[in-house]
Amino acid sequence: MASQHRVVIVGGGFGGLSAALRLGRAPVEVTLVDRCNYHLFQPLLYQVATGTLSPANIASPLRNILKRHKNTRVLLAEATGIDAANRRVILSDGSIEYDTLIVSTGSSHQYFGHDDWEEFARGLKTVEDATDMRRRILLAFETAERETDPEKLRAYMTFVIVGGGPTGAELAGALAEIARDTLRRDFRNIDPSQARIILVEGTDRVLPVYPPKLSEAARKMIERLGVIVRTGAMVTDVKKESVTVREGDRTETIPTRTVLWAAGVLGSPLGRIVAQETGATIDKAGRVSVEPDLTVAGHPEIYVIGDLANFVHQTGKPLPGVAQPAIQEGRYVAEAIARRLRGEKSRPFHYFDKGNLATIGRGAAVADLNWLQISGFPAWLLWIFVHLLYIVEFQNRLLVFVQWGWFYLTFDRSARLITGKNPLPLDL
Amino acid sequence: MASQHRVVIVGGGFGGLSAALRLGRAPVEVTLVDRCNYHLFQPLLYQVATGTLSPANIASPLRNILKRHKNTRVLLAEATGIDAANRRVILSDGSIEYDTLIVSTGSSHQYFGHDDWEEFARGLKTVEDATDMRRRILLAFETAERETDPEKLRAYMTFVIVGGGPTGAELAGALAEIARDTLRRDFRNIDPSQARIILVEGTDRVLPVYPPKLSEAARKMIERLGVIVRTGAMVTDVKKESVTVREGDRTETIPTRTVLWAAGVLGSPLGRIVAQETGATIDKAGRVSVEPDLTVAGHPEIYVIGDLANFVHQTGKPLPGVAQPAIQEGRYVAEAIARRLRGEKSRPFHYFDKGNLATIGRGAAVADLNWLQISGFPAWLLWIFVHLLYIVEFQNRLLVFVQWGWFYLTFDRSARLITGKNPLPLDL
Repeated sequence: MASQHRVVIVGGGFGGLSAALRLGRAPVEVTLVDRCNYHLFQPLLYQVATGTLSPANIASPLRNILKRHKNTRVLLAEATGIDAANRRVILSDGSIEYDTLIVSTGSSHQYFGHDDWEEFARGLKTVEDATDMRRRILLAFETAERETDPEKLRAYMTFVIVGGGPTGAELAGALAEIARDTLRRDFRNIDPSQARIILVEGTDRVLPVYPPKLSEAARKMIERLGVIVRTGAMVTDVKKESVTVREGDRTETIPTRTVLWAAGVLGSPLGRIVAQETGATIDKAGRVSVEPDLTVAGHPEIYVIGDLANFVHQTGKPLPGVAQPAIQEGRYVAEAIARRLRGEKSRPFHYFDKGNLATIGRGAAVADLNWLQISGFPAWLLWIFVHLLYIVEFQNRLLVFVQWGWFYLTFDRSARLITGKNPLPLDL
Repeated sequence: MASQHRVVIVGGGFGGLSAALRLGRAPVEVTLVDRCNYHLFQPLLYQVATGTLSPANIASPLRNILKRHKNTRVLLAEATGIDAANRRVILSDGSIEYDTLIVSTGSSHQYFGHDDWEEFARGLKTVEDATDMRRRILLAFETAERETDPEKLRAYMTFVIVGGGPTGAELAGALAEIARDTLRRDFRNIDPSQARIILVEGTDRVLPVYPPKLSEAARKMIERLGVIVRTGAMVTDVKKESVTVREGDRTETIPTRTVLWAAGVLGSPLGRIVAQETGATIDKAGRVSVEPDLTVAGHPEIYVIGDLANFVHQTGKPLPGVAQPAIQEGRYVAEAIARRLRGEKSRPFHYFDKGNLATIGRGAAVADLNWLQISGFPAWLLWIFVHLLYIVEFQNRLLVFVQWGWFYLTFDRSARLITGKNPLPLDL
């Protein structure tokens, strides 16, 4: 084993895991490093945040997924740095040597220079983010139920979602359904359906990466659920008890206790370290520029894939930070490594764009398949089918199916638990 | 509404929830106070701790369960005290008046005067306890995988369960199955089946409340799974890196990093406050003595039920702190309140003992039905049937069924996520 080519993959998301799976039969020694012991199906994280699914439904232990790959070991560790000269990954408790390195540590949120907003406007990237968001949403209703001051009550019943991309649209739709249907008969003093849900988007339309026609369809579906959509609106401040929004010259401060952040994305810190070590350029979103074969310029032994990579594909636009590019990149890199070991050359990475899907609520979604744009119920059926198909484990597929079936029939979200640090006395 | 009789129930466990459900059609105004927003099916909590089920599978939102009961409101609040003279429950953020009070706040662990042990030997009463225990168990294997020092490795691979009652036996069995089956092919450096699992019980047999024949059967089943059972063994110290056990004159210090506490039970703090306020006696386990009608002596308006009550039933022994007595007491109290309002008298509470069930592992359980004692596979089938029957929501029943089916067929526990505070660098 010691004489074999050592591939170290940092990050077990869609990109890293795809690479690891594809390398399972290659004559290499693979180490997958992740600080979580599971692969997370991030596209459904908003369903954990809104109480439809449990974390375990969308997370599969990495060891379990890779247990049949005898050439692969999983290391539960945090990669804190890279020593490119000596080909080592620095861990928080040790280090590990590589012959080829695949960096796929993804991204987290950014607050555009306002890191103090994070405390009041948590994003949605991890299981802990999702259970925290769930806690905040449910506690807002619980606190409202006990509030007698009408102004405070209004603030507790106001939810502001920042960012009108897929995550923001999904959160807004799910939140509206919770308020209108799931919690309908749960309270005695408040009427959850009176909750104000405000979706704030900086550009002039929701789902800005979709064709305008689908953005318009999505907006209508979101508004039909009772959500107030404000496009061309920039968030200029977030405080414990309010959000300030600027539209043109008009500035408004909205009293609210629950702000959900679905806006900026920032490449993980390891990207900056890769750039420092290799001289690669890094963009404002913290993404590392890569060559046509996904390596870092001057370092053919270092690949950067997934959200963290700034790869300009055939259409001249950078690839979006979603699952499909990451999966295809992971597979491409695995094959490129195997080819190189056989002395063969690889063609540049070519992204096959299958299209984009976003859901808004029950029976409401948009799908841009490039050759076809659909919205409404057919798009929603496609969305369900694709997401069930891609969930990693068979058992999870079955469980998610049962829970979705239940939920779509009854509106009941069974996973709406307030867990974590003791929230009492109530003080959002 | 204001003129109606106000019943306040503190605690939404088996006792409190049963009372609330039974009071749903009585001419009273019911307030159920709980610091959690869900009812927890505690008998299956060990399956969360060992990665078979998700918290949401065994927890149902209280508001959802009670939403059809228009006379009932749920208050998410922590009851910190009672003012019996003024008939008020003191909350951490306010207070609430009652005409009749039902105290059903249950119990937590006790460390027999060694509260410093809790840090290293967490018990299993809440969802947070269960996910923490799951984290510790999985991290022990993860750390062992990376440990090179053989002595430390042995400590990480040693699990000590303190207490040989039902919870201890269930944990020991589940842990043995995880090590032998679930994790079998997950690691590269360690063999999880070599884990040492030690069950320590102070009395001379496991499941001491069961008939000796069933204790013997249970011990054999536990040992068949590879668990080392040590009866007549007292834990005299728990430290970060070891547990000290005394058997007769022999004292041994066992190096371990994972101690699971399934021993002492202590009534919740509200019990002591009830005793102070009413003069009721309280026993060593923190349970409040109650009259034959489950009221506190001299306070016919205060009922104490469930784990927190010290009720001596017809056989002269106190009722065990399990679900059945709590459920029956809750129903009895609800009916007693309705009768009293109609001017009728109640007969004393009579416990109908349906028997006891404990499971050890796949296909292994014991059942004491009083008229019949069974063990092994038939007892296990009965255990499954009863537990599925009692899980509160239909959807949860279905989900648990699917997950059990999957798990019993494949040995795969899909919910083995390490969540919560970032565990890295590994340091148990």
